[in-house]
Amino acid sequence: MSRTDELYAELTRMLRETAVLGSCSSALGWDEQTYMPAGGAGFRSEQLGMLAGMTHERATSSRIGELLSELESSSDIGDPDSDRVVNIREARRNYTRATKLPRRLVEELSRTSTLAQQAWVKAREDAEFPVFLPWLEKMIALKREEAQAIGFGDGVPYDALLDDYEPGMTTAEVASVFGPLRDELVRLVTAIHHSPRRPKVEILERHYPKIPQIVVSEAASKSIGFDFSRGRIDASAHPFCSGFGPGDCRLTTRYNDHHFPSAFFGVLHESGHGIYEQGLPTDSFGLGIGQADSLGIHESQSRMWENFVGRSRPFWTYMFPTVQQAFPVALADVGFEDFYFAINDVRPSFIRVEADEVTYNLHIMLRFEMEQQLIAGDLKPADVPGVWNEKFSQFFGLAVPNDALGCLQDIHWSAGLLGYFPTYALGNMYSAQFFEAARRDLGDLETAFAAGQFRPLKEWLNDKIHRHGKRFPAKRLVEEVTGEPLSYKPLITHLQRKFGDLYGLTS
Amino acid sequence: MSRTDELYAELTRMLRETAVLGSCSSALGWDEQTYMPAGGAGFRSEQLGMLAGMTHERATSSRIGELLSELESSSDIGDPDSDRVVNIREARRNYTRATKLPRRLVEELSRTSTLAQQAWVKAREDAEFPVFLPWLEKMIALKREEAQAIGFGDGVPYDALLDDYEPGMTTAEVASVFGPLRDELVRLVTAIHHSPRRPKVEILERHYPKIPQIVVSEAASKSIGFDFSRGRIDASAHPFCSGFGPGDCRLTTRYNDHHFPSAFFGVLHESGHGIYEQGLPTDSFGLGIGQADSLGIHESQSRMWENFVGRSRPFWTYMFPTVQQAFPVALADVGFEDFYFAINDVRPSFIRVEADEVTYNLHIMLRFEMEQQLIAGDLKPADVPGVWNEKFSQFFGLAVPNDALGCLQDIHWSAGLLGYFPTYALGNMYSAQFFEAARRDLGDLETAFAAGQFRPLKEWLNDKIHRHGKRFPAKRLVEEVTGEPLSYKPLITHLQRKFGDLYGLTS
Repeated sequence: MSRTDELYAELTRMLRETAVLGSCSSALGWDEQTYMPAGGAGFRSEQLGMLAGMTHERATSSRIGELLSELESSSDIGDPDSDRVVNIREARRNYTRATKLPRRLVEELSRTSTLAQQAWVKAREDAEFPVFLPWLEKMIALKREEAQAIGFGDGVPYDALLDDYEPGMTTAEVASVFGPLRDELVRLVTAIHHSPRRPKVEILERHYPKIPQIVVSEAASKSIGFDFSRGRIDASAHPFCSGFGPGDCRLTTRYNDHHFPSAFFGVLHESGHGIYEQGLPTDSFGLGIGQADSLGIHESQSRMWENFVGRSRPFWTYMFPTVQQAFPVALADVGFEDFYFAINDVRPSFIRVEADEVTYNLHIMLRFEMEQQLIAGDLKPADVPGVWNEKFSQFFGLAVPNDALGCLQDIHWSAGLLGYFPTYALGNMYSAQFFEAARRDLGDLETAFAAGQFRPLKEWLNDKIHRHGKRFPAKRLVEEVTGEPLSYKPLITHLQRKFGDLYGLTS
Repeated sequence: MSRTDELYAELTRMLRETAVLGSCSSALGWDEQTYMPAGGAGFRSEQLGMLAGMTHERATSSRIGELLSELESSSDIGDPDSDRVVNIREARRNYTRATKLPRRLVEELSRTSTLAQQAWVKAREDAEFPVFLPWLEKMIALKREEAQAIGFGDGVPYDALLDDYEPGMTTAEVASVFGPLRDELVRLVTAIHHSPRRPKVEILERHYPKIPQIVVSEAASKSIGFDFSRGRIDASAHPFCSGFGPGDCRLTTRYNDHHFPSAFFGVLHESGHGIYEQGLPTDSFGLGIGQADSLGIHESQSRMWENFVGRSRPFWTYMFPTVQQAFPVALADVGFEDFYFAINDVRPSFIRVEADEVTYNLHIMLRFEMEQQLIAGDLKPADVPGVWNEKFSQFFGLAVPNDALGCLQDIHWSAGLLGYFPTYALGNMYSAQFFEAARRDLGDLETAFAAGQFRPLKEWLNDKIHRHGKRFPAKRLVEEVTGEPLSYKPLITHLQRKFGDLYGLTS
């Protein structure tokens, strides 16, 4: 064993241990959202705060700094795209980021996040923003402190937070791609608004009992390739995917007896995340190669299965008979075309996670603007409901009836996930690019989907994206896989074609 | 603040942190038994092994030793029964025990326990002892090593393990109280065997759908005082109670569609444990005063609610109408007396956790004998099925049809819990003594139970037992509460009277 090999072995052992400790927090976090009794909140926050502090201590151990410096200066570490060099590069990135954050701030963020989420659940239930306000104020103050501690070069403070979720992406770059996409989307939404065609959405608001909802959504998840021997689906207030570690990936969804799409498409969405997590190389757990590339790439996987597959005509050619059988009352008199049009209804609405493929991105743009202002200090947390409602009216032409349908709808701010939202829209763009590339590589995917064959697409994603972990930063990954740089055009082309057909638009 | 106060504050802070870390293992252990997908087993074992090692490292920190020595030698620590002195005494006991165990052994026990439990689940499902044998061998070897490391004075190696669960109790003391109890039990079982009366047990083996089973067992748990805002009940292969920490106590049970008592009495039993956990002083979490006294005392609480309350005539006077309404088909033609007799059926049977009040203790005596031999090295793990079946035939006059109904039925050996079983029978004895004392103190409990009033008994237990934690070692607690030393007589008197009536025995 060479000196470099020895140092590298020590580094990977330390990184894996830190990741194992971090995975304990993931498991406790999952339990908090799914099964924990209300009375356990205070103590859970103590547990998570302690684990966060211990994880941070390990992640910032000076020994890691020493190992990295020695490895980076050695001549025989390997090819820049090799597992080893990638793992060292990512370890350096994390180490630099972590050592910039004082332990006190890390622990306080963890504690605040747990308690703020409890307050948010209550505030959302009662549509009472004041219940959440003190926690939002505390969280924004902590995140501003975090941005200062991380630093942001010549950019804006928001860059420091965005970079945590989408490495290498800046606020300005996001704004530059959101701009033209927004113009095109507004044009499309307006055209749809003027179309005389309207789906019968009441079809989806009939009574859909919970048990068959669980059965069909789990069947769909299984058919697209989520492995239930290494994962499961539970219910929570806000759907999420948490990959605990090798062999254990948890998804959640929420069931609404009178809105079929909530759970069904929620499950497809989270299954896309889960299939990505399950496709990461397990022997590289805790290392760059064993981790998802960026949140934007993660979201591209969920949107791929939720929208490009799950809301497509061939998917429903396969799935509709099963769903119709599961809900014999609600769907007795419903034909395929009406159902397919209803699940692709486009119209301005209040809740982001239930928004259609077209308006969804406008929800993101609203949050992106507000987050920048909150972090810059140009918007006071107390003014959030007012500003939200004003912007919402501008973007969607709708008056927000209460904060549960407005600024209290998302878990992100209570959990400290500022800078996260833009990655959802980036994911939609990546997703469209990947799907175009998959069709080029694999040929007629539509016929396969209609026959319930999703494995070719899943294995293509496993091979092109999942197995690489963080080998290529997101922007380069897109080029490696599609041959093109990041672009909003495949997304808008897809939307124009699909909804042009459905709404009978002339382009 | 005096010097003693400062040292004590530092000690309690360290102990609480260690307990918080340990509570993360409890939560992961609960998840492992309830929701974890099979594929997560290997990684879970890695998580738990790491946490166990870290907890052990903290528990054995030399700083704790220094603080204890200084505190023990200070003149102003307080009254021997005060919170402070008790907490110091218990910290010393744990520190001494923990420092005797090498970290390697602790980690290996934790890892082995996780993997052995997975193997046990599979072995039990398929009634395939050989699947479990290599893990049993490994576990027994590790527990023998543990006994040697702990030491056992002039006693036997088993003493070292027993003392972990029932502090201050020796193998010889247990044997001396089990002896006369066993003679009396055999006499009672024989008398029952010769009685012409037999309950109609098929009543309980009709179809009891799972959902109403959940509803009635949770209602019963709530009515006796388990607080669902600070706890919950889930399903697992083997029922247990795990108090994670302040405000969060988890119970589990298993549902059998064709055996009503399994889940219902399982829930009452675990609720008894849970009420104890919920009654511990939360501000002493991690300290002696905040912890349950001994496993025997813990079991006395579960048996109190399961048997002395839950299988009593007045409890069913209150509960029977609700249960009959929940199972209108199964119980349509069943009268109170038949139901009450059926749930108090006494007959030799294979499964300990489903055994009746009388034969239950014989199951324990069998395991107590075998464990002593395993730990002494007088019994090879490979010979366990043969010896089990032979003893079972002696004790119960029954031939064990397969190992799932024999030596594979309990989780304990796979989890490394050797020395634990005797505490179940001690708990039955303590329970009878406590119940006698409660009736002396509170008067007519039967009328209260028949009216659904369980709060007087619960509050008496809270006051006499729960709030004290480990203030009094178990033997002294029994004397403090009942005025008498440990005795098997209240138990046998209760059994003779209750089953004498049911089976029409002449004494």
